[in-house]
Amino acid sequence: MAKKEQLQDLGITVKKDEDFSEWYTQVVLKSGLADYGPVKGCMVIKPWGYAIWEKIQSWIDQKIKETGHKNAYFPLFIPEKLLTQEQKHIEGFVPEVAWVTHGGDRKLEEKLAIRPTSETIIYSMYARWIRSHRDLPLLINQWANIVRWETKATKLFLRTREFLWQEGHTAHATKKQADEEVKKMLDVYVDFAETQLAIPVISGTKTEAEKFPGALYTTTIEALMSDGKALQLGTSHNLGQNFSKAFDIKFIDENEKEQYVWQTSWGVSTRLIGAVIMSHGDDKGLVLPPEIAPTQVVIVPILFEDSKKQVLAKAEGLKKKLEGKGISVELDGREEYKAGFKFNEWELKGVPIRVEIGPKDIEKNQAVLARRDTGEKTTVKIGEAAGKTEELLLEIQKSMFRKAEDFLKSHTYVAKNYNDLKKMSKKQKGLVRAFFCGDETCEEAIKEECGATTRCIPFAEENKSGKCIRCKKQGKPILFAKAY
Amino acid sequence: MAKKEQLQDLGITVKKDEDFSEWYTQVVLKSGLADYGPVKGCMVIKPWGYAIWEKIQSWIDQKIKETGHKNAYFPLFIPEKLLTQEQKHIEGFVPEVAWVTHGGDRKLEEKLAIRPTSETIIYSMYARWIRSHRDLPLLINQWANIVRWETKATKLFLRTREFLWQEGHTAHATKKQADEEVKKMLDVYVDFAETQLAIPVISGTKTEAEKFPGALYTTTIEALMSDGKALQLGTSHNLGQNFSKAFDIKFIDENEKEQYVWQTSWGVSTRLIGAVIMSHGDDKGLVLPPEIAPTQVVIVPILFEDSKKQVLAKAEGLKKKLEGKGISVELDGREEYKAGFKFNEWELKGVPIRVEIGPKDIEKNQAVLARRDTGEKTTVKIGEAAGKTEELLLEIQKSMFRKAEDFLKSHTYVAKNYNDLKKMSKKQKGLVRAFFCGDETCEEAIKEECGATTRCIPFAEENKSGKCIRCKKQGKPILFAKAY
Repeated sequence: MAKKEQLQDLGITVKKDEDFSEWYTQVVLKSGLADYGPVKGCMVIKPWGYAIWEKIQSWIDQKIKETGHKNAYFPLFIPEKLLTQEQKHIEGFVPEVAWVTHGGDRKLEEKLAIRPTSETIIYSMYARWIRSHRDLPLLINQWANIVRWETKATKLFLRTREFLWQEGHTAHATKKQADEEVKKMLDVYVDFAETQLAIPVISGTKTEAEKFPGALYTTTIEALMSDGKALQLGTSHNLGQNFSKAFDIKFIDENEKEQYVWQTSWGVSTRLIGAVIMSHGDDKGLVLPPEIAPTQVVIVPILFEDSKKQVLAKAEGLKKKLEGKGISVELDGREEYKAGFKFNEWELKGVPIRVEIGPKDIEKNQAVLARRDTGEKTTVKIGEAAGKTEELLLEIQKSMFRKAEDFLKSHTYVAKNYNDLKKMSKKQKGLVRAFFCGDETCEEAIKEECGATTRCIPFAEENKSGKCIRCKKQGKPILFAKAY
Repeated sequence: MAKKEQLQDLGITVKKDEDFSEWYTQVVLKSGLADYGPVKGCMVIKPWGYAIWEKIQSWIDQKIKETGHKNAYFPLFIPEKLLTQEQKHIEGFVPEVAWVTHGGDRKLEEKLAIRPTSETIIYSMYARWIRSHRDLPLLINQWANIVRWETKATKLFLRTREFLWQEGHTAHATKKQADEEVKKMLDVYVDFAETQLAIPVISGTKTEAEKFPGALYTTTIEALMSDGKALQLGTSHNLGQNFSKAFDIKFIDENEKEQYVWQTSWGVSTRLIGAVIMSHGDDKGLVLPPEIAPTQVVIVPILFEDSKKQVLAKAEGLKKKLEGKGISVELDGREEYKAGFKFNEWELKGVPIRVEIGPKDIEKNQAVLARRDTGEKTTVKIGEAAGKTEELLLEIQKSMFRKAEDFLKSHTYVAKNYNDLKKMSKKQKGLVRAFFCGDETCEEAIKEECGATTRCIPFAEENKSGKCIRCKKQGKPILFAKAY
């Protein structure tokens, strides 16, 4: 295959603005994040994608532990009668459950659901483990694979039949403690999205129609992708006593009285990787925020036979210095590829900074730093390269967040009347704020007439009230959008 | 419930020597390592057990990465036709596969196996990814849950229908490189078992009858549990070109010729936790080697109303010092439990060192260190407590290994004739060394007549030869044992 064809094959062949969906798929496949597996709807998370997931896991796992939770692991299989024990929950999940009916060549007596979420199996254990107020709060998290038999078209990281996530499941003595837990863990997600993924989010409460099946209420963080559609990044639910009553999870309180526990659950998934792609990517491919980039800096030496040794020595020296600063660096010394090819490949993969060192740079005792997010190049003294790179990583992280924040602000609209909402929603670009009564029939009608769903009642505005944009009854501010 | 009953309920009620199997189950359940889930054969790994798994993962994951491998994630579901593509492989696994037949309320066109191991699904992807010698070696690992529909009695961590593991899958240009990979990864397992789990192992090759279905050969590490039965801790397989031929995984070599790749796979699982329990546990419960103990030191302050403040202050001070040394410490300041109750609980959980600090110790400016492995108590100056604790952790790690090594040596026998082998095997205590021809019918006969299976041909002795203990044909030294 000729070099030119190879480049074309490797690079993204559509513009983001022209065909966002095709652009997205090409970025995922060509940057090596993921691939389609042999079973419809199932993805393979390739090393580059999995390394990002490991960065996500590592940060979130630490916070989960710092906030007093412990990890555990519960079975993949849920007996049908357990899954169906909480009425609302089962209505929400049964249509998309994968069922195991045979073990070896024998038919099972009771078919087994593959967990679409683990409330039911975990709470069947909590019913056995919790006896006294001394056992509370019970604060457990698990990292696991999840299966939901989606029927809509597959979208890698966003809609697949199997995905990876963490799910926290807690039990408390009082509603107040459960409320605090819900808030605390949502705050962890806000912090993660904004400081690590460089994605600004709006946190708030879901409507009755959009809450988790079986929850008392659901809180969420919502982000705006660069095509103007919203994406739910994480949720934290107060389950009230719905599950404790269905699963008989009781404790003896300090006054020797039997009480049902109050519960929460909360989670984020590999969908976060989809959010990063759609928030920051450009026509050249992925753009990774430094905090979650598996490789933060790639050094590409420009190799010619007569100067190779000196150039590689300088490159090695810089690599060591950067590693000493805790920066993850790759030195791409492959001789079978030209520098231009390597530039394209690392840009496609979204590595935040590329350092170029060639014979001319050696002569001038310098190196070139190229930012992935802006494309800007800076020439620096080789002795200062490590320090400058470190500063630049911080600057890129901040700058990517600011850019996403500007986009969110400039794409959040206020609808004054129902016609406004219809028109704005049909433009398909951004969030539309309006007052909304909370009524499910009104919500359904807006979905049909405007093509927009409710995202959340922002915490920042939950004390405001006004007339519902559709029915004129009293309501709260809410955000509408087309959503993934 | 009275205090006494509570203690009885919490403690182990059988002696290890009297009923090993019941002792094992009680240790697992009562120390909080795991519990039975609602589906037969499925376990819940509770926080204490999962924390040990995290220690195991962390060490092995680092080695996997240091040796050049990358993590990825492949789908849980394997289409029936993929699973059955390699003949030997399918004969080995189909009898214990769980099958998904329905998604939501629809019957699937092709039933899906839940991975019993991932060779087939991973290699279907490798066939697409590998084109040229430049793509080799391909070095990938995944951490995943695995399902095998066992029909024998459940034994937590040892025989459950779902378990957790890592599985490495590599592709190479030559057999030699695959051989080296097999060895390299088995060495990682040896290192891990001996330095971290404090379990001495014998590494060697499996017989033809005992090798992995579809492999060219299988290498293994085998350990001797304290009831005298052997346990396979980890395996590393050279798959030859069996899978590359079945899955058509070819590459263009440096001479532009098409070749099939050579492959390896290797793995260890949550079964390692079972090995720790059975190697080191005693009548009081679990005994953890310091390297994999989630809590290495527990400080139990002896609390009385009038001296509580001073005692807790000293305990806090020591805790900080120990943490400063990178030691994981828990200060058990619970006031609703007596010190004696706490001693029992932490002994049950296997924490390597307990530090006691009471009012009398404060007066004498001392603390008491209690070793979990030997029960030995030492009184030390409070100023020296952190340093002594650090030394003691190292000593415990070494001493536990030595003890297990002595046990292994004193329970390895040499059978001179077939009657010897029969008698020794029936005693059920230890490994029996003998020469063996390698013939499958001979192996089957020994299994039936002596009740012992072949464990491995030790690498240390693979160049020796002698007459088969049963048929007198020329053979190699091999180890026989009853095994889990």
